[in-house]
Amino acid sequence: MVFFNCDYNEGAHPAIMDLMMRTNMEQTGGYGIDPYCEKARSLIQAACGSDDLEVQFLVGGTQANLTVIAATLRPHQGVISADSGHVNVHETGAIEATGHKVIALPSQDGKLTAQQVLDCYTAHWEDGAHEHIAQPGMVYISNPTEIGTIYSKAELQALSEVCRKCGLPLYMDGARMGYGLAAKENDLDLKTITACCDVFYIGGTKQGALFGEALVIPNPAIAKDFRYMIKQRGGMLAKGRLLGIQFVGLFEDGLYFKLSEHAVGLAMKIREACKNKGYSFLVDSCTNQQFPILPNAVLEKLKEKYVFSMWGKVDEENSAVRFCTSWATKADDVEVLCADIAAL
Amino acid sequence: MVFFNCDYNEGAHPAIMDLMMRTNMEQTGGYGIDPYCEKARSLIQAACGSDDLEVQFLVGGTQANLTVIAATLRPHQGVISADSGHVNVHETGAIEATGHKVIALPSQDGKLTAQQVLDCYTAHWEDGAHEHIAQPGMVYISNPTEIGTIYSKAELQALSEVCRKCGLPLYMDGARMGYGLAAKENDLDLKTITACCDVFYIGGTKQGALFGEALVIPNPAIAKDFRYMIKQRGGMLAKGRLLGIQFVGLFEDGLYFKLSEHAVGLAMKIREACKNKGYSFLVDSCTNQQFPILPNAVLEKLKEKYVFSMWGKVDEENSAVRFCTSWATKADDVEVLCADIAAL
Amino acid sequence: MVFFNCDYNEGAHPAIMDLMMRTNMEQTGGYGIDPYCEKARSLIQAACGSDDLEVQFLVGGTQANLTVIAATLRPHQGVISADSGHVNVHETGAIEATGHKVIALPSQDGKLTAQQVLDCYTAHWEDGAHEHIAQPGMVYISNPTEIGTIYSKAELQALSEVCRKCGLPLYMDGARMGYGLAAKENDLDLKTITACCDVFYIGGTKQGALFGEALVIPNPAIAKDFRYMIKQRGGMLAKGRLLGIQFVGLFEDGLYFKLSEHAVGLAMKIREACKNKGYSFLVDSCTNQQFPILPNAVLEKLKEKYVFSMWGKVDEENSAVRFCTSWATKADDVEVLCADIAAL
Amino acid sequence: MVFFNCDYNEGAHPAIMDLMMRTNMEQTGGYGIDPYCEKARSLIQAACGSDDLEVQFLVGGTQANLTVIAATLRPHQGVISADSGHVNVHETGAIEATGHKVIALPSQDGKLTAQQVLDCYTAHWEDGAHEHIAQPGMVYISNPTEIGTIYSKAELQALSEVCRKCGLPLYMDGARMGYGLAAKENDLDLKTITACCDVFYIGGTKQGALFGEALVIPNPAIAKDFRYMIKQRGGMLAKGRLLGIQFVGLFEDGLYFKLSEHAVGLAMKIREACKNKGYSFLVDSCTNQQFPILPNAVLEKLKEKYVFSMWGKVDEENSAVRFCTSWATKADDVEVLCADIAAL
Repeated sequence: MVFFNCDYNEGAHPAIMDLMMRTNMEQTGGYGIDPYCEKARSLIQAACGSDDLEVQFLVGGTQANLTVIAATLRPHQGVISADSGHVNVHETGAIEATGHKVIALPSQDGKLTAQQVLDCYTAHWEDGAHEHIAQPGMVYISNPTEIGTIYSKAELQALSEVCRKCGLPLYMDGARMGYGLAAKENDLDLKTITACCDVFYIGGTKQGALFGEALVIPNPAIAKDFRYMIKQRGGMLAKGRLLGIQFVGLFEDGLYFKLSEHAVGLAMKIREACKNKGYSFLVDSCTNQQFPILPNAVLEKLKEKYVFSMWGKVDEENSAVRFCTSWATKADDVEVLCADIAAL
Repeated sequence: MVFFNCDYNEGAHPAIMDLMMRTNMEQTGGYGIDPYCEKARSLIQAACGSDDLEVQFLVGGTQANLTVIAATLRPHQGVISADSGHVNVHETGAIEATGHKVIALPSQDGKLTAQQVLDCYTAHWEDGAHEHIAQPGMVYISNPTEIGTIYSKAELQALSEVCRKCGLPLYMDGARMGYGLAAKENDLDLKTITACCDVFYIGGTKQGALFGEALVIPNPAIAKDFRYMIKQRGGMLAKGRLLGIQFVGLFEDGLYFKLSEHAVGLAMKIREACKNKGYSFLVDSCTNQQFPILPNAVLEKLKEKYVFSMWGKVDEENSAVRFCTSWATKADDVEVLCADIAAL
Repeated sequence: MVFFNCDYNEGAHPAIMDLMMRTNMEQTGGYGIDPYCEKARSLIQAACGSDDLEVQFLVGGTQANLTVIAATLRPHQGVISADSGHVNVHETGAIEATGHKVIALPSQDGKLTAQQVLDCYTAHWEDGAHEHIAQPGMVYISNPTEIGTIYSKAELQALSEVCRKCGLPLYMDGARMGYGLAAKENDLDLKTITACCDVFYIGGTKQGALFGEALVIPNPAIAKDFRYMIKQRGGMLAKGRLLGIQFVGLFEDGLYFKLSEHAVGLAMKIREACKNKGYSFLVDSCTNQQFPILPNAVLEKLKEKYVFSMWGKVDEENSAVRFCTSWATKADDVEVLCADIAAL
Repeated sequence: MVFFNCDYNEGAHPAIMDLMMRTNMEQTGGYGIDPYCEKARSLIQAACGSDDLEVQFLVGGTQANLTVIAATLRPHQGVISADSGHVNVHETGAIEATGHKVIALPSQDGKLTAQQVLDCYTAHWEDGAHEHIAQPGMVYISNPTEIGTIYSKAELQALSEVCRKCGLPLYMDGARMGYGLAAKENDLDLKTITACCDVFYIGGTKQGALFGEALVIPNPAIAKDFRYMIKQRGGMLAKGRLLGIQFVGLFEDGLYFKLSEHAVGLAMKIREACKNKGYSFLVDSCTNQQFPILPNAVLEKLKEKYVFSMWGKVDEENSAVRFCTSWATKADDVEVLCADIAAL
């Protein structure tokens, strides 16, 4: 069986494993205060175009989300998110467990628009009973979104402008950041993201590392005492250097971007194969996740050789599924898959 | 100006004030352990048809809701509510502040159906990723709902049956309980509610008391250590007897029910006046809140003499408003209002 | 039986009850936005010597404490308190339930010294592992303390100075504020307290009201959005005017201070009676709570006529007890008690 | 410089790194549902003597502690701990952030006695105001403790017996479990610990793994829905197999125990060297942490070659320090250190 069900089936890229092996018996300080975290921080600051950015490393995405949101909001505030946002649907109420409401706005494509945020903010403050309602306190987006779509530069800048006007810090979940930046349609880069967002993370777990997310915090008010927050939420890794080592591996020589391109390139082949066959898509994704709608009979056949995610019934005859590629996906496997799609 | 904007504009019914005056200089124990709370407890147990029910008294509705929900759920669980439920929209994230997600289900009439709850429960457990999603842990309803509708006996029993099958405690917010029971269409009574619900409260604040909600807890698992919960959430009134005294006043000689009938009777007159004039309603309410849709021009005139709540724009020419009656509404005021509606 | 066990055995002072009766059927806005709260606010601002102070009204003390502390701290911060502080021992973990550690410092007399706070703060920041430790974020004191002692002006000013130097907001719990201000040894006043504290409350529950605490918030950063916090924590009283009315009653014509003097004067008589008999005290209190150490045999006799609190065994023959006086204590009852003490 | 300051300075034991390398490109399911976690679970069940124990894997100790405690307590309950317990002093208020008070009992040797727990429990329930006080809801201990001491079998059994009598689940933090079991004075084993505790963890981070703690949950009430809790608190590792792989490495062929013996053996040499020189100890530890009291002049010399932790000033001339050994400590380094101690 070949797995296309998600982008975290394998360990880490061999270059990263190699770096971990070579440094294994060195003695360093703990908790992210070590030369490797220092070096990774510098590499990420350079990639983001600013050498005094706060950068912290966390193990996973839900941990990053709940820590950032808890650190940013005052108790009576909630976080605005698309209704399909990871924090709203797939974190077992982790945000609420820190005391905050997720203010979910409807979205078809997984994205929030500047207008939506402005309307939500305005409606809150115009309501005479506003203190009886959770106050919008920040905005959560993901790029790419949970369904593979991406923000354009213009969209992100408009969103950022509204957020700043409303005093709402903007947070971008970048669990698959590289796969977004590698999309052909993409016109964003890390410098623009740094300029637009108050805090964001560059995902490692799904992008070539064993685990790890690099949190970048351009807004000093959020950065203040942030390490306390990491510790309190159980996110401070004793051997923090493991995170530093992996991000050194990813950001030295641009490995992160190369791996992202690899994954997206293969995803485009799957997209092409489905399109050629006349299949439509649940959502038009330009990144490493593809959501074709396939006849159930075809799916049954594909299941004999491949693992993929069932995403939802479309009608009696057809279902939407998700195929993921990743840094680890083999070109040969995709080629055979595409041939199988063409043949079925 | 005459106020029809809400049902808590005045103090308390004179009989209750009188009882408070007469007992004012007595010395009793604090925190709800006193003869008046004891007596009120007995009266409520009798009204509910069971003499060993746990009954506790709280000052207000949001306090009751957050204390009950925090006491009932385990940390990873959320509370199912209609999207219009008070806990979802008008409590400033109070439920989330106790760590729990409100799982909001769409509702046009403010009610939840047994089928909705069953579907929500089933969908959760069928989802392969269920532990990544907040687990449905209890059900919150209000009767009457925030928009004045009520549950029939059959509806409540069906809901209760599903809840028990699914292991979901059922909680009824009865901020306006009496106004629901006094509706002509109502076939519920406190005994049935006691049989169907795991916990509910009988509202005093909007029903003739200065403040106070009587929490009834048929389910012993929720009752266990409940007074700790009240104290921890800041809801334990030092001079707890004030709550007891008021509920003695309300439940001795059936004052609670008489006041409820008074308010609903007057609300029906307002409904009739609007209907006679050909106005439609945002929702068909048989209780003390009425939501007619009136021409803006008429509203402007009415505003000169009356205070009422704007509920939302319907179209360019018409708006929905809310008129509330209460135990304190004067029949004369309603008569004049109805005449004014007829005349405009 | 005559009750000296606590200071909340009766209802409210007749003048307050009278005011509640006279205004009972008026129609006003809810949630503390009404002419009575407005007037009470003005009276309190005048008493505190500043006409733009934020003043909010809450029902009870634990509610006030948890709301203030949750509103003031960031998530990784704790509140410094004497180990005997109410927030540390008698609120069922209410502070922790909002997510914050109570950093308890040892105290014999219920008070914190400026030096203690400075040392605690300095030790935190000198610790290399400080981000592994809850950060001191504010200071909680009570005046009078839980055991009846009071801060001198010099002590409070020194504490305030250290707090400002360390960036620690200073919060004073004034559940029995008046009884402290009425002590012969007292040299504090509300203006000094306003100048020294970032937030404090003037207690009504134990000082002549049915319930109610007036929260004064000189620090605008804490005042910001404070009403959201009140609502979220379940503390926003629907008929908020009841709080306003009571504080109008207490602060018009200086009733609050007269009642305080009454209670403290009677407490001094009890103190004198015990001293004359040669009894010692657990703590030297100049306010309405007295903690004499009495022979068990004497206590047994007193129990036949009086209710008081057992405070702890001192040795095989003697126990410490608490006698409370209040605004409602009758001079005659105290006279008889003193005679009984003298006689036993 | 040679580091003796803590036991997490290096990466992982080569055998574990080797296993991670060999399995790196395999495709497995995520979130701890994979063959390696399955195998590690079996190995740990076997070591604990029961093949149906719930075993879950977490990344770190604070995460394990906060997740277990939040999963076990009801909201009004607190966790009893020695005042020196890690949850009380070194987790940035992580337990309080989940809403619970740490009920700290005084301890000189880092341990709790059965009598202390019984007294605490009894005192709570005998207090008339018990619902005004956080209710003791579970007991936290660590073995070895934060200062290297261990529980005897008799002590643990007595503690367990009291806990069961009082209905208090007993939780053992085993961050350095192996170093305790390897002590010459130890008479505990995993089977006894399984029989005595409701939940405990076997630490990997400080014992040869890159990271990871194996949580064992003999009490089914705590095990119920535990994976939701892990996810909600941000502790569910996407590539969960990494934890499984490491515990397979540790528990196959008894590596965990061999590494523990190695570390403790070397610690005993340091102890011996200090004793021979006539130095006393802050605490008599039989495990991998040693707390000798050394003359400041000696410390200054040692600092030129070694890194160790300053633990506290004892008097003007002497300070307590901590030397840690671990699975990674080299026998040669210890030999030279001992020689240096002897020579100074």
